[in-house]
Amino acid sequence: MSLPLALIVETALCVLTPSNDKGNVALQVYKGKDEILLSKLILDPSHSILTQSYDCRLRLDTRRPHNGDGFGVGYYTDPKLGPEPCIFTSTIPAWNCINLERLACKTTSSLIFAHVRATTEGTLSDSNCHPFRYNSLMWMHNGNVGAWRHVKRRLVDDIGDQWFLGVKGGTDSEWAFALFLDTMEKMGHHPSFPPPNGFEHKALRQAMLKTIARINKFIKDIPEPHRSAKDLDTRSLLNFAVTDGHTVICTRYVSSRTDEAASLYFSSGTKWVEYEGGHYRMERRDKGADIVLVASEPLTFERDNWVTVPTNSVLTIHRQTVMIHPILDEYYNPSPSYSRSSGFASSKGLVNNETPNGSETKVLAASRKLDGTERVDAKVAINGVAA
Amino acid sequence: MSLPLALIVETALCVLTPSNDKGNVALQVYKGKDEILLSKLILDPSHSILTQSYDCRLRLDTRRPHNGDGFGVGYYTDPKLGPEPCIFTSTIPAWNCINLERLACKTTSSLIFAHVRATTEGTLSDSNCHPFRYNSLMWMHNGNVGAWRHVKRRLVDDIGDQWFLGVKGGTDSEWAFALFLDTMEKMGHHPSFPPPNGFEHKALRQAMLKTIARINKFIKDIPEPHRSAKDLDTRSLLNFAVTDGHTVICTRYVSSRTDEAASLYFSSGTKWVEYEGGHYRMERRDKGADIVLVASEPLTFERDNWVTVPTNSVLTIHRQTVMIHPILDEYYNPSPSYSRSSGFASSKGLVNNETPNGSETKVLAASRKLDGTERVDAKVAINGVAA
Amino acid sequence: MSLPLALIVETALCVLTPSNDKGNVALQVYKGKDEILLSKLILDPSHSILTQSYDCRLRLDTRRPHNGDGFGVGYYTDPKLGPEPCIFTSTIPAWNCINLERLACKTTSSLIFAHVRATTEGTLSDSNCHPFRYNSLMWMHNGNVGAWRHVKRRLVDDIGDQWFLGVKGGTDSEWAFALFLDTMEKMGHHPSFPPPNGFEHKALRQAMLKTIARINKFIKDIPEPHRSAKDLDTRSLLNFAVTDGHTVICTRYVSSRTDEAASLYFSSGTKWVEYEGGHYRMERRDKGADIVLVASEPLTFERDNWVTVPTNSVLTIHRQTVMIHPILDEYYNPSPSYSRSSGFASSKGLVNNETPNGSETKVLAASRKLDGTERVDAKVAINGVAA
Amino acid sequence: MSLPLALIVETALCVLTPSNDKGNVALQVYKGKDEILLSKLILDPSHSILTQSYDCRLRLDTRRPHNGDGFGVGYYTDPKLGPEPCIFTSTIPAWNCINLERLACKTTSSLIFAHVRATTEGTLSDSNCHPFRYNSLMWMHNGNVGAWRHVKRRLVDDIGDQWFLGVKGGTDSEWAFALFLDTMEKMGHHPSFPPPNGFEHKALRQAMLKTIARINKFIKDIPEPHRSAKDLDTRSLLNFAVTDGHTVICTRYVSSRTDEAASLYFSSGTKWVEYEGGHYRMERRDKGADIVLVASEPLTFERDNWVTVPTNSVLTIHRQTVMIHPILDEYYNPSPSYSRSSGFASSKGLVNNETPNGSETKVLAASRKLDGTERVDAKVAINGVAA
Repeated sequence: MSLPLALIVETALCVLTPSNDKGNVALQVYKGKDEILLSKLILDPSHSILTQSYDCRLRLDTRRPHNGDGFGVGYYTDPKLGPEPCIFTSTIPAWNCINLERLACKTTSSLIFAHVRATTEGTLSDSNCHPFRYNSLMWMHNGNVGAWRHVKRRLVDDIGDQWFLGVKGGTDSEWAFALFLDTMEKMGHHPSFPPPNGFEHKALRQAMLKTIARINKFIKDIPEPHRSAKDLDTRSLLNFAVTDGHTVICTRYVSSRTDEAASLYFSSGTKWVEYEGGHYRMERRDKGADIVLVASEPLTFERDNWVTVPTNSVLTIHRQTVMIHPILDEYYNPSPSYSRSSGFASSKGLVNNETPNGSETKVLAASRKLDGTERVDAKVAINGVAA
Repeated sequence: MSLPLALIVETALCVLTPSNDKGNVALQVYKGKDEILLSKLILDPSHSILTQSYDCRLRLDTRRPHNGDGFGVGYYTDPKLGPEPCIFTSTIPAWNCINLERLACKTTSSLIFAHVRATTEGTLSDSNCHPFRYNSLMWMHNGNVGAWRHVKRRLVDDIGDQWFLGVKGGTDSEWAFALFLDTMEKMGHHPSFPPPNGFEHKALRQAMLKTIARINKFIKDIPEPHRSAKDLDTRSLLNFAVTDGHTVICTRYVSSRTDEAASLYFSSGTKWVEYEGGHYRMERRDKGADIVLVASEPLTFERDNWVTVPTNSVLTIHRQTVMIHPILDEYYNPSPSYSRSSGFASSKGLVNNETPNGSETKVLAASRKLDGTERVDAKVAINGVAA
Repeated sequence: MSLPLALIVETALCVLTPSNDKGNVALQVYKGKDEILLSKLILDPSHSILTQSYDCRLRLDTRRPHNGDGFGVGYYTDPKLGPEPCIFTSTIPAWNCINLERLACKTTSSLIFAHVRATTEGTLSDSNCHPFRYNSLMWMHNGNVGAWRHVKRRLVDDIGDQWFLGVKGGTDSEWAFALFLDTMEKMGHHPSFPPPNGFEHKALRQAMLKTIARINKFIKDIPEPHRSAKDLDTRSLLNFAVTDGHTVICTRYVSSRTDEAASLYFSSGTKWVEYEGGHYRMERRDKGADIVLVASEPLTFERDNWVTVPTNSVLTIHRQTVMIHPILDEYYNPSPSYSRSSGFASSKGLVNNETPNGSETKVLAASRKLDGTERVDAKVAINGVAA
Repeated sequence: MSLPLALIVETALCVLTPSNDKGNVALQVYKGKDEILLSKLILDPSHSILTQSYDCRLRLDTRRPHNGDGFGVGYYTDPKLGPEPCIFTSTIPAWNCINLERLACKTTSSLIFAHVRATTEGTLSDSNCHPFRYNSLMWMHNGNVGAWRHVKRRLVDDIGDQWFLGVKGGTDSEWAFALFLDTMEKMGHHPSFPPPNGFEHKALRQAMLKTIARINKFIKDIPEPHRSAKDLDTRSLLNFAVTDGHTVICTRYVSSRTDEAASLYFSSGTKWVEYEGGHYRMERRDKGADIVLVASEPLTFERDNWVTVPTNSVLTIHRQTVMIHPILDEYYNPSPSYSRSSGFASSKGLVNNETPNGSETKVLAASRKLDGTERVDAKVAINGVAA
């Protein structure tokens, strides 16, 4: 049986990978063959990322957010305007941002990242809003790096000057991006020189997995007795998303064998349709999948549109194909019946309390379609991490 | 029987009048013999106006706010610095405003207004944040003027140039303040020339009641068939608060005989005490009442600290005394058993869904202490309106 | 010679009409056959509207600005996204707005309005930033309405409810736009129903001229002795720009026979070229003119690229043609040698102190190309106003 | 003779030390026996820090500021509210900040820092606005750390975790503050535990001088060939100001023997008087000096009110006394006739181009009043650095 998790759906492949972290952050990825109006993703759906950010807060009854909200959207434009995405960030709540509303109604793109922040590190500042950008690369994070106060200096010391000096804000998420950029460079894929058709998807995926491995290593290197101090939580929630404008890599990951990661979903199809005021669904006219959406929680109430990404796996959207690979490190458990606790992610506000029933099953079913080629690829990816 | 609603408690009188509109707006008044640190009211209480604004939203599941949040606090300083209050407003959410947090920890005052806005008229702008100020007068509103699109021009045409030109923003609340200022002037109490010890409390109360009467008149003057159009809601929720630095006047009012007004509570005592991290209560060491708090919902979980202000009444804090008078117009019903529906205020997000049991009773009990003098005064006030 | 002011340049017509008000406001219009990257107009030119706003302040040594800066840009997108322009406004200085910088580098359009504000009415608020929009129409103003405190109520009373209620901010400029919209409606061209290919350029021009005439009338209606009060300045500086996405109308106007209006320039050609870092010029490869720029001061140091728009005239850009008509009211003087004082506009910071020599001559020379048809049209336009 | 620069003026000593860096930053310190209304320093003077920030820009014709403006004010309150200062920062221009205007009119303090920023490192963010605070300590910087891209990592690696983790923004100025805090701790004066009456002024001064020495050391440690690279400017402009609420330490310093530091002035007297609308002057009724002002450029046009602080010296305000000591390191030149070039500071916009004549003379004259005790003290301070 092994390695069941890569999804391949025939020719015009289809996948979408929503990484759902509910609560303090909501993120969302759109990749389509055609451009879509931003407002159809961000503003109009009754359960859009905007209302998510708003609803998310509904569940945080007991704690007042101590840091800043913030919003960001990044999108790629006509290649004639250059390979870099355009980024719009806002430190006022997304639902109050008149500029966001106006821009979203007049801007189209075929690859969009969106992020709402209500989180734990860094003050309210444009510099702290996701997505982060370097050249053609765009990055988002939903979660937190464990034992950050001990990890920060190790990370800072381990990366090259260019990336060290490029960090403008104060979030663990931006430093994780710097670490990713450093990893890319050290692997021989300098972020300053993107190939005309983008980096290889294997390279991006490996760099992502190595980034996670390096973070885990920093935490392991915290000396005793700090590392075992009772009040130090070394678990990281690492739902990352990165793209170079061609390939999208998303992770759903927790550095724990017993806890569940923050949630993540995807949906794919041929058309994103508003069938009733504010209510959208994904339609699929044929086997193909022209559109892939990844989100920290489902954007529609049509729950069978959405597939859960398994804990501790990496999702790749490349051309018309979506692949899901397990992240085979010490925190991985291959048994589909293995049970993890959602308490940790939940304590961070990162668990959807209305988990759509049956979606886990759906992934496993889908995974049976795996073919051999992809499985090998998955192994390579993992080996890269393990090495 | 008649006129039961004025509260007089012996010598050092005590009352506080919280006008609670839950949901889209939270407002709060502090008046004390001594200065209090702003943070003890605004930031620290576990159920402070900050968390109210935050929690309030918890109940608004189904609608995304279409207009701006905003926050404002106004406070009087040492009289040597002049009779005007200092106003601090913010268009970023109060819980993210680092300046608010820093100022509140280092500022004391004996008369404070605070307001959180998430409402219906006007865009997100400092100009639209309460409290509004003119000279020594400060104004807040929780609710809405009915049929505003029809009333606005009538109001604009009815007030003097000085007040017409002074309006900076676009809210019905600021126009209602302009109307109040115009009323003061026409009554012979020009807001530009406050007496050294403030206006007479009767004058302020009468001006407030006349302001409400003028708003009701504007609505009645809407010509048919507009006035009876099905989609036109002519009911106003008018919880106002005004002060000149000496007297505080608050109303809890709805222009309907069958609906309940937005909620309003008050608490009074001798000391505002943090008995446990983030948990405050009002203490009363003797019969006196050095502190009066009015709030759109209770700031503490000690529910017996809080008294409900009856629907369609006006609360006055003058020196050490609190008085509550009924507003005896066509929307008043003297029967204490008369039942109103909370559906309307609730639809605006202006009803507290955890009404403290027994508080209504408490008011009625308290009201028996009314003495004759005050009753007469109450009559005068009402007559002023009726005329 | 009569009516010298309409510019017609052969077939593929060419004109551009910069309305320059230096000092407290800078505005800029781009209309081209092809789309242009916003940054090439707004950010990159060494004398761009950004640096103008910055430089303008250089001349205001003696007065601290008491009101808000603000920035706005409006542009039309692919017609598939609807006829309305996209508006981006900012209350932080344009040169610090990271979102503006990022958007301008990734957005193209063939019709762009840009405006920098440092002016006299209204507080710092997104609601007060130009350009203003209604449906497909976009509006900017550089200058001020004379005796505004006396005019405001007259204007408010004279316009229909729809436009009265639509005003969100507090500026004379936005109220002037409401007046324009009301004028359009009363002329039978309802702004809510734009024809598929835009309004007729004559209709837009007439509505503009009527708007100016109505403002003049409001001022004349100020009763004595107010109107003659020494401290009341009844002169208006009305450099307006309006467009429906097809036609652009700009005025350079002052309601005075002895004062000069705020400055306004235009440039036209076939290509807008950066010939050296930050230095742009307009090139003309043939007689055609694919690009027209209108600006409150020249955007390049190539002064022969720029033509001064005469005081009290209206400039029309329609398809590939630019026309300039005199505004033949009581403030018009047909003599080209008639001398006006720049003192008034200068006192408002609205005069370019480095007037390019010879540009006035240039306009007159150009005007000799006028043909009969256009002259008649000019008469009609004027008659429309006079009537 | 040696060591001429400490200023002691009789009993109730008097000095003030304005560190003037014109252009990209303006800073200002007030220390008085009595409280002063903030607006009298910040808003009202015709040449206040507000207009300085505004005027400063007047001289920057040729370069557009690439980073954020920002404003900050810090002030100590009644000691009952704790030893920490209150900080108000703003990312909108100071002259547009309505909250600043309202607060300044209603807030008094006897020790105030104010800072306007238009500078070179760090994005526009509240986190990047001066003054910075830790516990009772407050810090401002006017200038830049040389070769910052090479120094940053050295500084980061050299300081303790507490200070490393405390940095929220991205400016060299905030990192310099972290270095100062680290220096204090290593000298045995932990910033977390301020003595009830403040740190000893010698300790604060020595920590300041050691901070400068450590920065110089970091720059010297840049390895060849980086250090000698043509495009690397290793010169630092280090006008710092620090206070613990009791003592104020200001430096005027450049790490060069041939260049002049950014400008700095002080004024002292018994009363700060508005003798005419917007025009202030310092009055001195007797020999005492109850008020000391330090500013990057004179706040009044009464130029004989202002004394230039000599290049490469440190100014101390302690109780009623002001002292100026030379900073006797390799960049010091004792000859009063030694000539430095203002080109470097000027290129950074940090030189006042209207240097008040005769002020340098004034300092030298004043310095003759030095007594032996103070000279010794000065030596100690210097030895601290030299060691």
